[in-house]
Amino acid sequence: MIVRQLFDPDTSTYTYIVADPATREAAIIDSVKSQVDRDIRVMEEMGVVPRYALETHVHADHVTGAGELRRRLGVKVGVHKDGGAECADLQLDDGDEIRLGESRIRVLHTPGHTNGDVSYLIDGAVFTGDALLIRGCGRTDFQQGDPARLYDSITGKLFTLPDDTLVYPGHDYQGLTVSTIGEEKRFNPRLGNGRDKASFVELMNSLNLDPPRYIDVAVPGNLRCGT
Amino acid sequence: MIVRQLFDPDTSTYTYIVADPATREAAIIDSVKSQVDRDIRVMEEMGVVPRYALETHVHADHVTGAGELRRRLGVKVGVHKDGGAECADLQLDDGDEIRLGESRIRVLHTPGHTNGDVSYLIDGAVFTGDALLIRGCGRTDFQQGDPARLYDSITGKLFTLPDDTLVYPGHDYQGLTVSTIGEEKRFNPRLGNGRDKASFVELMNSLNLDPPRYIDVAVPGNLRCGT
Repeated sequence: MIVRQLFDPDTSTYTYIVADPATREAAIIDSVKSQVDRDIRVMEEMGVVPRYALETHVHADHVTGAGELRRRLGVKVGVHKDGGAECADLQLDDGDEIRLGESRIRVLHTPGHTNGDVSYLIDGAVFTGDALLIRGCGRTDFQQGDPARLYDSITGKLFTLPDDTLVYPGHDYQGLTVSTIGEEKRFNPRLGNGRDKASFVELMNSLNLDPPRYIDVAVPGNLRCGT
Repeated sequence: MIVRQLFDPDTSTYTYIVADPATREAAIIDSVKSQVDRDIRVMEEMGVVPRYALETHVHADHVTGAGELRRRLGVKVGVHKDGGAECADLQLDDGDEIRLGESRIRVLHTPGHTNGDVSYLIDGAVFTGDALLIRGCGRTDFQQGDPARLYDSITGKLFTLPDDTLVYPGHDYQGLTVSTIGEEKRFNPRLGNGRDKASFVELMNSLNLDPPRYIDVAVPGNLRCGT
């Protein structure tokens, strides 16, 4: 698969364009509304044919470009069915497969950051949204976040993938772009190296983070696919 | 080859760790001094064995971490011989090959941004420093910059690589991380799509850019490998 990573500096969000090399059918994962012009230009110049705008979850930190991409390119929008985004064309469920030419995107339900998180597994790479971050994980203090559930998603589902699976996260704040399942299992300070569930839950419940800057705009906007 | 891209938000600089998958011998390309702790930790956790700190050129926009990496890890520092960095262990020349286990890094002299620019060609990817940027190119108004020479480097050397060669630049300011030779040949607004040399030279000579923020510290510092 062709993978193109894009970054939104304002919200430290990674967007991904993934495409089948044979047919060049493409999906864009976690687009950002303010970057839609850039992303459409990049897809045109890559010579790919956009089919899907997929969300890893209903974001609280940026407004999705999915609805705008649907309006301008006719793509189908996909969000997990528990996310509550009735605007989506595809209400995704665990185990679903999305076809791009001969390639497949497999949907893994990985809740805990929100109740409707998914990771997308494609050809040796997994796009983890805000479930598993590089040497971190998503917060669990709003939008039905649940640290025990996040622990099960990461250790029970993502950490069972092969060690050399590339991990492409939804954000990074330190200039890191990619990791591997093997590295996260060993070095993730929040839940790598065999940390047990009770200690992870205690850690997550003690973080006392400020609310995301754009949450009051982003969550209601994203429940309408950003339109 | 294993490729890990890293970003320094302060100077929009990309650093790359490249490693031979069999022996895990590694080189770091265009390190940034303020990110050396991060980069050493990443290399440790990737399980690679650092051998070289390679520079694409003597930078004017950030201070290199090469000297610090040499001190702490014992790596050899490589810079093109025309860069004037006498501190370097390897005074590189066009056509040189640097060995990492069974893998080879090929040195392409691509001057014009400065007189001592190189691009590093590795296994279907080229690390172009500030010669070829994504939909742009390096400026040519200091450090023996020469737009006619840059035109020849890019069109005569980089654009003769296969179209699907991945282009990893030294910087990006719009959240783009990678391109291909084929895309740059078609869509680079400065010298793609067959633009002729005279018109490129005229364009570059009319840019009237402000000097880089850190030039007075960076250039003399980098001539001493950042120490």
